[in-house]
Amino acid sequence: MGFQLSSREYKSQNSTVQVGAITVGSSNLVVMAGPCTVEDENSLLQTALSVKASGAHILRGGAFKTRTAPDSLQGFGETALRMLAKAKATTGMPIVTEITDSHDLALIGQYADIIQIGARNMQNTALLKAVGKCKYPVLLKRGFSNTIDEWLAAADYIFAGGNEQIILCERGIRTYENSTRFSLDILSIPVVKSRSHLPIIVDPSHAAGRREFVSAASKAAIAAGADGLLIEVNYNPETAEVDGRQTITTAQFDELMPQLRTMACALGREL
Amino acid sequence: MGFQLSSREYKSQNSTVQVGAITVGSSNLVVMAGPCTVEDENSLLQTALSVKASGAHILRGGAFKTRTAPDSLQGFGETALRMLAKAKATTGMPIVTEITDSHDLALIGQYADIIQIGARNMQNTALLKAVGKCKYPVLLKRGFSNTIDEWLAAADYIFAGGNEQIILCERGIRTYENSTRFSLDILSIPVVKSRSHLPIIVDPSHAAGRREFVSAASKAAIAAGADGLLIEVNYNPETAEVDGRQTITTAQFDELMPQLRTMACALGREL
Amino acid sequence: MGFQLSSREYKSQNSTVQVGAITVGSSNLVVMAGPCTVEDENSLLQTALSVKASGAHILRGGAFKTRTAPDSLQGFGETALRMLAKAKATTGMPIVTEITDSHDLALIGQYADIIQIGARNMQNTALLKAVGKCKYPVLLKRGFSNTIDEWLAAADYIFAGGNEQIILCERGIRTYENSTRFSLDILSIPVVKSRSHLPIIVDPSHAAGRREFVSAASKAAIAAGADGLLIEVNYNPETAEVDGRQTITTAQFDELMPQLRTMACALGREL
Amino acid sequence: MGFQLSSREYKSQNSTVQVGAITVGSSNLVVMAGPCTVEDENSLLQTALSVKASGAHILRGGAFKTRTAPDSLQGFGETALRMLAKAKATTGMPIVTEITDSHDLALIGQYADIIQIGARNMQNTALLKAVGKCKYPVLLKRGFSNTIDEWLAAADYIFAGGNEQIILCERGIRTYENSTRFSLDILSIPVVKSRSHLPIIVDPSHAAGRREFVSAASKAAIAAGADGLLIEVNYNPETAEVDGRQTITTAQFDELMPQLRTMACALGREL
Repeated sequence: MGFQLSSREYKSQNSTVQVGAITVGSSNLVVMAGPCTVEDENSLLQTALSVKASGAHILRGGAFKTRTAPDSLQGFGETALRMLAKAKATTGMPIVTEITDSHDLALIGQYADIIQIGARNMQNTALLKAVGKCKYPVLLKRGFSNTIDEWLAAADYIFAGGNEQIILCERGIRTYENSTRFSLDILSIPVVKSRSHLPIIVDPSHAAGRREFVSAASKAAIAAGADGLLIEVNYNPETAEVDGRQTITTAQFDELMPQLRTMACALGREL
Repeated sequence: MGFQLSSREYKSQNSTVQVGAITVGSSNLVVMAGPCTVEDENSLLQTALSVKASGAHILRGGAFKTRTAPDSLQGFGETALRMLAKAKATTGMPIVTEITDSHDLALIGQYADIIQIGARNMQNTALLKAVGKCKYPVLLKRGFSNTIDEWLAAADYIFAGGNEQIILCERGIRTYENSTRFSLDILSIPVVKSRSHLPIIVDPSHAAGRREFVSAASKAAIAAGADGLLIEVNYNPETAEVDGRQTITTAQFDELMPQLRTMACALGREL
Repeated sequence: MGFQLSSREYKSQNSTVQVGAITVGSSNLVVMAGPCTVEDENSLLQTALSVKASGAHILRGGAFKTRTAPDSLQGFGETALRMLAKAKATTGMPIVTEITDSHDLALIGQYADIIQIGARNMQNTALLKAVGKCKYPVLLKRGFSNTIDEWLAAADYIFAGGNEQIILCERGIRTYENSTRFSLDILSIPVVKSRSHLPIIVDPSHAAGRREFVSAASKAAIAAGADGLLIEVNYNPETAEVDGRQTITTAQFDELMPQLRTMACALGREL
Repeated sequence: MGFQLSSREYKSQNSTVQVGAITVGSSNLVVMAGPCTVEDENSLLQTALSVKASGAHILRGGAFKTRTAPDSLQGFGETALRMLAKAKATTGMPIVTEITDSHDLALIGQYADIIQIGARNMQNTALLKAVGKCKYPVLLKRGFSNTIDEWLAAADYIFAGGNEQIILCERGIRTYENSTRFSLDILSIPVVKSRSHLPIIVDPSHAAGRREFVSAASKAAIAAGADGLLIEVNYNPETAEVDGRQTITTAQFDELMPQLRTMACALGREL
């Protein structure tokens, strides 16, 4: 099948990943929220305080980004990492942020609590091997045209390096349908649960590509058995340079969280 | 966009479809359950009694089937329709069954409460026009490679003939991923809700293609806002000649229903 | 595999289909050309005379069409068939035209030399069975999201009825790529040749969806081993109501044919 | 559109890439041939001598590979590069070989005449930027689920670094069809020619995934206007550990080349 270390055959019990005091993969759902790309300190802090108050556990924010074209914003790098550090100091929330180049691993490691590998780098084996040798939890997004088995094989690259703290993240696959940016492969959640011991969360924002569908995508993800969510939230998404179209406002997030909590409860989980 | 009569622009309020005493598209969720293909009278009746006891509203069962190869079972035709009539007489459940040829419309109309158009016939415009002229509610499945807009345009064919009693049914789309038979396009539910006034239900069985994923698919569908489900259930699916692999047992259905009820409740709906 | 009668195992030698004096499936390539939809008598005749002069063998033209939306032109029916009959009388070219409803079979049979089943009806098993019982050669287009094996199983439906005169037609599949209307699955040609004894031609017009790519698609099809082409050509495509964007002019067709002839020759075939 | 430097708007005339005495993108077609992965010196040399005698211009061979699973052969690294150097010294053929990690750039640069970026790294922007700053011609494969516009945007990353020597390589896209490993997107060739000034070649081996279809794929690519081919050829592919199934033998290659030459001639090109 191409994967071994990530498989249920290798380990029958569910794995959990510890991020500070937070456990990913337990009966408690974990919500990571924040802006797509960290663009300025003030709005990051406002967003962080707001999502924390609404119940989010971990702050997301991009400092290094993989963009389709070279003249698109690639992120503000270390400057953005420092803004994330301030937001963490103020709110106490752990940070998840993306790595795009193994050269940045030591730098990002100083700031991040979870290192994210984006969809476009899911089969960048050099990067997978690099994070496999580090000590940080890794959030491994599914490549938008990769099978579930290829995704678990990518996780194996990290696992094989000695790093077993892997969180999978479904973020939609590329299909012919164009009413949404990608098609959320909702059944990947029970499939992963049946084939692998690793925890899996869902990114409803990239899947939907439009904020009006983020709520339905989030509820469906939890109903299908996801261990958490990674949601793009911004104080004022309309002014964001990157992916504003798919980012919900802090007010919308605040409205969504109690609904997710009720859903979690109905499923015998907590949020 | 290609569709008009099915659009929110044409009619801003949600449409409902009345099937006897049952309303599809209200806050009450509707569950249609039964065997893929009606194969023998006894097991149909046992299945019908069981799903009714578990809370299903409508009995599904195929008498005429569109199969990929000509030597596969095409259904037992009028014999099967008569078995469905007996099950209806015994249980009081309305019947939903598929039409594959407009020549059969008068015959099927004598037995069916809802006439189903299968995914492979979604763009069979001759058939769409034929059911557009009849008086029966129509369940229109999405073609497995059709866009949502093409699906709504197909509904327009029925609508244009004067028949406004249309229930849409998402049943998964064909993608590169092969761990499931099709990929359930969960976001089609909020997209349809935003673009159309028609009710939409979900067939988790064909989407998943494997019974172990039917529960997750059903919950996700309801969480995403579907108005109901069309589930393949059989007293003993292992002996079914057609699609047994994706059919849940009556026992599994009985276990699933209370979970769906709790979910519905958490979402402010009833089941 | 799902198909038997169409398979190489069933018949190891290549089948040919006779259309008047023309043999489809021999070393001689066959070119079918004409407008997407027959819209007026004069331009049909001009187009027919021109493509005949350029070397086309068979005249194509739609009288009954399967359109996505009910308010799109569905073809001019019998009026268009009569125009095709006149063009045939004048040019001597056999006619290929589409059927969308089995009710029209007797009517279309009076005019057509080849009956075409469109992509959207490839799994309309009622229609497949109907043409399986008739005496006319059938052009079976591939459904735009059907596998090659499903396509051959559809041919089996026709074959099983007693009609062995089947010509397959690849016309592009639906993928995520949107620079062309569909993606021409060029490798379907050698795959079909390896699995089936049936002749296969290619429709470059629907695959490309844009006339500037029809030439490359046509050459590639022949290079890959196709037995012929079905090309949309119109005297003045810009005035055509249907699919004008993908239709080449008679002048472009006249330029293309000698290039295809040179290609055929280089491959040891004739045109 | 997302790309600029690669566009026809930026440069209207065709670009060519010089590799020693060989020009890629002229009326002369360029054939690159050799094993998927360099596995032993002797068979590499035999393969190189044979493909050279058949008319190939450039020797391909993998030293560093991106494999789906970590326990698959990742290539023999510098050992393989030294074998390629010997084969180059003996045959005079320039070398094309893949890079998977920017750390290896200086090393690979000592041996390679063209540096290949594989499909799985097409959006590895760190790697694109690294090769953008080097002096070597780059062969940029299309990601198997990337649009043509994303591919040209990836080329822009290289171009923006100052390296304009870019050869595009179509290698098949991922679709639902599974009779071939990938679906060769044959129309990408005329689309790229219309949108970009960069030369484009085709890898028929990865697209087809089965050696019996490589001949048809190669001919179709040339017919559609490709500037060359990248073909997997091995003296004895059955013993190859990687991708033997899609590799043709030197004998098959020797049979194919004269056919391609006749085709090229029919198209007004040379080989």
